[in-house]
Amino acid sequence: MSLFGEYDSQNIFAAIIRGDAPCYKIYEDDDVLAFLDLFPQAYGHTLVIPKNAKARNLLEVDGDTLAKMMATVQRLTGIIVDELKPDGVQVMQFNGTAGGQTVFHIHMHIVPRWESQGIGAHASGKGDPAELAALQERLVKRIG
Amino acid sequence: MSLFGEYDSQNIFAAIIRGDAPCYKIYEDDDVLAFLDLFPQAYGHTLVIPKNAKARNLLEVDGDTLAKMMATVQRLTGIIVDELKPDGVQVMQFNGTAGGQTVFHIHMHIVPRWESQGIGAHASGKGDPAELAALQERLVKRIG
Repeated sequence: MSLFGEYDSQNIFAAIIRGDAPCYKIYEDDDVLAFLDLFPQAYGHTLVIPKNAKARNLLEVDGDTLAKMMATVQRLTGIIVDELKPDGVQVMQFNGTAGGQTVFHIHMHIVPRWESQGIGAHASGKGDPAELAALQERLVKRIG
Repeated sequence: MSLFGEYDSQNIFAAIIRGDAPCYKIYEDDDVLAFLDLFPQAYGHTLVIPKNAKARNLLEVDGDTLAKMMATVQRLTGIIVDELKPDGVQVMQFNGTAGGQTVFHIHMHIVPRWESQGIGAHASGKGDPAELAALQERLVKRIG
């Protein structure tokens, strides 16, 4: 998918926002929703999405929504670091298929990193449901 | 370097802000500075840094500065897309050595991507000075 095009309301994140698809939610307010990535690149891989913006990417999202997303990314990154004690964290936002984007509703990745794991090590598949549920519970408790 | 520690005023970005080191600057205002990465992961690889915050990473930067950085990232991404016509763009912010961070003054990467180049293709070395200077001129003209 290119950087430009129509927003598709059938994308999986739109379905999650509507409540038509499940997610391992860790945080929600009026503006943003945060949940665990189903195909984690690392333990604790979290996504932050806006709930009210029909924006495919950074070129389309309004500045106010972007600021709210980023404030949540910052707060959750602090909590994830406190709770999971990674050695580093990558925050990433991909635009277009050539930019690594796979779901065309703007989202930010928070990816904890550990020295013992290669930085390029990507998950090859779906996360273990039991592990994701346990991690969800742990982070929800911490976020409070 | 871990996620936690003292801010080192001798880091290269602090030197650039002070005017003690050169950079291929493409944009500057009271709050942020944007310049071309000397070791570009792709053509047009740009960095956005805050000028007034002594923050190593996302855990340390204040929210107002972060919002200003992100607003500039969004604006410059739009201009870079208009001018260089990449197929995609990655926006990335790395924290800690384990997170891929190499300079310990918070910065955001804007990395244009083209379908014809592998997404994992990283530059192995320093960018060509003549190419960087030409690109700087092109983007400065466009930013206006």
